[in-house]
Amino acid sequence: MDFERYIRDIQDFPQPGVIFKDITPLLKDPQALVQACETLCGMVKDYAIDKVVGVDSRGFIFAPLIASKLNAGFVPVRKKGKLPYKTISESYSLEYGEDTLEIHTDAIQKGEKVLVHDDVLATGGTANAVCKLVEKLGGEVVQCNFLIQLTFLNGADKLNGYDIKALLTY
Amino acid sequence: MDFERYIRDIQDFPQPGVIFKDITPLLKDPQALVQACETLCGMVKDYAIDKVVGVDSRGFIFAPLIASKLNAGFVPVRKKGKLPYKTISESYSLEYGEDTLEIHTDAIQKGEKVLVHDDVLATGGTANAVCKLVEKLGGEVVQCNFLIQLTFLNGADKLNGYDIKALLTY
Repeated sequence: MDFERYIRDIQDFPQPGVIFKDITPLLKDPQALVQACETLCGMVKDYAIDKVVGVDSRGFIFAPLIASKLNAGFVPVRKKGKLPYKTISESYSLEYGEDTLEIHTDAIQKGEKVLVHDDVLATGGTANAVCKLVEKLGGEVVQCNFLIQLTFLNGADKLNGYDIKALLTY
Repeated sequence: MDFERYIRDIQDFPQPGVIFKDITPLLKDPQALVQACETLCGMVKDYAIDKVVGVDSRGFIFAPLIASKLNAGFVPVRKKGKLPYKTISESYSLEYGEDTLEIHTDAIQKGEKVLVHDDVLATGGTANAVCKLVEKLGGEVVQCNFLIQLTFLNGADKLNGYDIKALLTY
């Protein structure tokens, strides 16, 4: 399937000079939604996955779909203060300032195989923080997959040593 | 399946006096995740659904799963300023102040049958605003379904006339 025709470029969002990749045309098409999930699952076919971790909030869209397909559980990673139970946290740098992500302490058991999913791989800061959270809990990150990889932002450099896959690269 | 045993009560979250229903134990269990989706889909079996609308961010977890299962598209509703394309908006009252939700103008076509999904039905303000957004675009809300309905908050009163279903009621 030509997924690219379901991605819409939005000029100057969220700020001037940025071209945002809008995935909502893909999401609203029943066949594209299912096929995108199938293709992402096909990329992890050699691993037995215990947990799929999705990042708040667009990572929540495909991570449970992938988990359901792979017979794995779904684990949310959220911004500081959003998860209700005991958490561990990881801070990471943004262009200006920093941000903090959290995961529940009981979300992953030692030795579990984990797939990390988010919609877009940009600079890699978010995904790298998520991998650290998984590893702090004793999980093994076997792949990071994304709908879209913006290769010109060099996010793969921050995820050195991890298996990185994407449905679409720009 | 006894879904209730996968829901964890968290005292005083997000504020003192509130008992928060934590759904993450359900999400991380592969069987419970799939069965919850199956059961939610079973509740809409008499309708042919074109679009499943999920509310940012916990509504994003099950809405795409349900959409995928029902061969429908998924449409996100988000807080003001988060959606990149042209939107319409709807404001609603909170305990203190108000909040605004948005939907893309091209998300739903006139006459489409729409299922509205969120994780929790509390006072009903959010779900009612989502229904209004769908109807402004010419969609027909055929059901609002939830993982959890907190009946003591009387959310159903704000959704008068809609078919309301929930996996669990408290």
